[in-house]
Amino acid sequence: MSTAARPRPSGRLLYAQSGGVTAVINATAAGVIEAARARGVQVYAARNGILGALREELIDTSKESKAAIAALRHTPGGAFGSCRYKLKSLEANRAEYARLIEVLRAHDIRWFLYNGGNDSADTALKISQLGKAMGYDIRCIGVPKTVDNDLAVTDCCPGFGSVAKYTAVAVREASLDVASMADTSTKVFILEVMGRHAGWIAASAGLAGEGADAPPHLILFPERTFDEDAFLAKVKATVERVGWCTVVASEGIRNAAGQFLAEAGTRDAFGHSQLGGVAPVLAALVKEKLKLKVHWALPDYLQRSARHLVSKTDAEQAYAVGKAAVEYALAGRNAVMPVIVRTADAPYRWKIEPAPLARIANHEKTLPKSFLARDGFGITAAARRYLAPLIQGEAPPPYGRDGLPRYVQLKNVAVARQLPAFTP
Amino acid sequence: MSTAARPRPSGRLLYAQSGGVTAVINATAAGVIEAARARGVQVYAARNGILGALREELIDTSKESKAAIAALRHTPGGAFGSCRYKLKSLEANRAEYARLIEVLRAHDIRWFLYNGGNDSADTALKISQLGKAMGYDIRCIGVPKTVDNDLAVTDCCPGFGSVAKYTAVAVREASLDVASMADTSTKVFILEVMGRHAGWIAASAGLAGEGADAPPHLILFPERTFDEDAFLAKVKATVERVGWCTVVASEGIRNAAGQFLAEAGTRDAFGHSQLGGVAPVLAALVKEKLKLKVHWALPDYLQRSARHLVSKTDAEQAYAVGKAAVEYALAGRNAVMPVIVRTADAPYRWKIEPAPLARIANHEKTLPKSFLARDGFGITAAARRYLAPLIQGEAPPPYGRDGLPRYVQLKNVAVARQLPAFTP
Repeated sequence: MSTAARPRPSGRLLYAQSGGVTAVINATAAGVIEAARARGVQVYAARNGILGALREELIDTSKESKAAIAALRHTPGGAFGSCRYKLKSLEANRAEYARLIEVLRAHDIRWFLYNGGNDSADTALKISQLGKAMGYDIRCIGVPKTVDNDLAVTDCCPGFGSVAKYTAVAVREASLDVASMADTSTKVFILEVMGRHAGWIAASAGLAGEGADAPPHLILFPERTFDEDAFLAKVKATVERVGWCTVVASEGIRNAAGQFLAEAGTRDAFGHSQLGGVAPVLAALVKEKLKLKVHWALPDYLQRSARHLVSKTDAEQAYAVGKAAVEYALAGRNAVMPVIVRTADAPYRWKIEPAPLARIANHEKTLPKSFLARDGFGITAAARRYLAPLIQGEAPPPYGRDGLPRYVQLKNVAVARQLPAFTP
Repeated sequence: MSTAARPRPSGRLLYAQSGGVTAVINATAAGVIEAARARGVQVYAARNGILGALREELIDTSKESKAAIAALRHTPGGAFGSCRYKLKSLEANRAEYARLIEVLRAHDIRWFLYNGGNDSADTALKISQLGKAMGYDIRCIGVPKTVDNDLAVTDCCPGFGSVAKYTAVAVREASLDVASMADTSTKVFILEVMGRHAGWIAASAGLAGEGADAPPHLILFPERTFDEDAFLAKVKATVERVGWCTVVASEGIRNAAGQFLAEAGTRDAFGHSQLGGVAPVLAALVKEKLKLKVHWALPDYLQRSARHLVSKTDAEQAYAVGKAAVEYALAGRNAVMPVIVRTADAPYRWKIEPAPLARIANHEKTLPKSFLARDGFGITAAARRYLAPLIQGEAPPPYGRDGLPRYVQLKNVAVARQLPAFTP
């Protein structure tokens, strides 16, 4: 897509981050802003995602230095703020959509880039439709992002590869610790990972080792009903054979009654319901039934904010989708998403292509059955083939002399309001 | 200490790892083995720490390649196995000490290097004394190691700096995540860290940021009795002022009754006592009393096995104490430990010196009161001055083309037994 002969486009571009942030979503922001700057287009960012667009809380990214924008590429979190806020259907809340169009119009926003998951793709699609209906010329591009890896069409989702790498490394490192102490100390180690609905992250733990004796010895997928007897039997057999056992559990596993194990009614001494954690529930089970010493870890946000350990592949893809989104927008495309297309497994090759938002919005890509080992506790060769390239390569952040990663804090200069206040 | 003119010493050296392992204890092993090889001394390692010495389960490290030993420098866990096993007093269990001397004698072990904490220093001291009493010429050197940083005399303990760095980085990264979502999602994030008796690791979290508004906003030290009202008030005030709040809690905090919060009787739905976790207890409190959305993380072994994120300073000191231990041993020193002496804060300078085990055994270095901020929820400038150099520098492991760190698995070839079996 050569840009050499093109005139400077008229109007501004609005970029918004949506939903849970990742270690590389700001790399996408960097891709967007650098590509737009190269074309002479001013980028506004919505503060706290779509809420900022509704509230007319906009940030002028042209006030940021070139170095600050480049540093976004290695800074985790969401630089402009993100939010969990799903716009209702057009019928249910036409006022919000109308307000969005009003804000876009007031600031001469001609391109809207929405960086998120399924819901965001749906919102971007609706805004593009409403713009047409309301006679306002706006191009809407969905930009993929989610650690859950559950977006349709795209081969993988920016953000996922880095959590996958974090998880595989954590399993490898912690297992070396457990193995060396198992003679007199912990025999079973349980790592709880994100993924309430789909076992993509849990599956990635399988990359840590291969073969029956290599960790992780058991992976508990949300796609499989938790079978206490089978679980305990396999843990017991592993400890007897290997001397210790590493378990990776998705936060989303459920019992036969369909309840999340993590919410199966744990209460503390005061009668408060405990907050989350399938790992402690499993740990109590192992201790109670197998009388084995057990430890557990729950990295929570650490796994999705660990910019220090991202996959280079993931970081590059995150940047590339941002850049492509701008190219598509300025080329006049509408209601599409730049998706990652895999052209070869080994050596891994990929490219970016546009896909219609209508094919992505509100769909969910689940873990294929062919990725789960027959006993339900591991991954198959097909899963390895898919997952392996996504964690390849390192892209560490720069570190200061203080030994800490140098993450950028943007100035986030507010754009003057043009409209009356609005409360979403 | 020039080695040029010295004859090859006669006898073997035995190296054993003790207690909880660290991300850099194998760097110490590399220092030991490489220094001994340079002097032509064969190194045996005890399998699973002192238990291997008692059971006569010895490993011949001369069967390992030069490359394998070099790779120990970047491999976490304990390469020969470690154990939690404290020898009783000489009076209470003379048989075990006598057995140790017997094993040492059978394999012509003339130098014993014991790599651990306070207990190990005590054991090494006792063996040196008993050797003398039993007419067996053995030099015993304690080699420092502990993430708890609680050894006396030495300025810091190999293993600690890397956990400190892990903790500070985790706070910085997760806080960026929380900050970007706080408008509509999590307002309070709680990170639980190791350190049951001393708040060294908790204190290191303070390096993540400086000033009242920078995370971590609260650190809960085991040195301070947990004050629920003060805790909730500060969390509330922080959320009101900053918009969100990051809390770092030591696993060892206790209530006014002296009970560990983590063991304050939490039970799951089946009536099982929950296993550990002060973070979920605090999270429930915040949710219940402040009605704020809260997330928590408990990295457990991940924090002490994270070789991918070690402090270069720590990794270098871990290697240096191993090397120095061999030099001391071969120079005929006995019942000493190579300790780290700080000669300057900024720029940081350090050297290794021998210190008598008698000054170290069974002592515990606690966090100075001058390191805790007046309100008990943060660290002082003095603490920063002490802690800052310990997390400086990066020393990442090599990564394979698969995107995973390349950690070495030794062959661990067993030495033929000379003695009858013995069950400790």
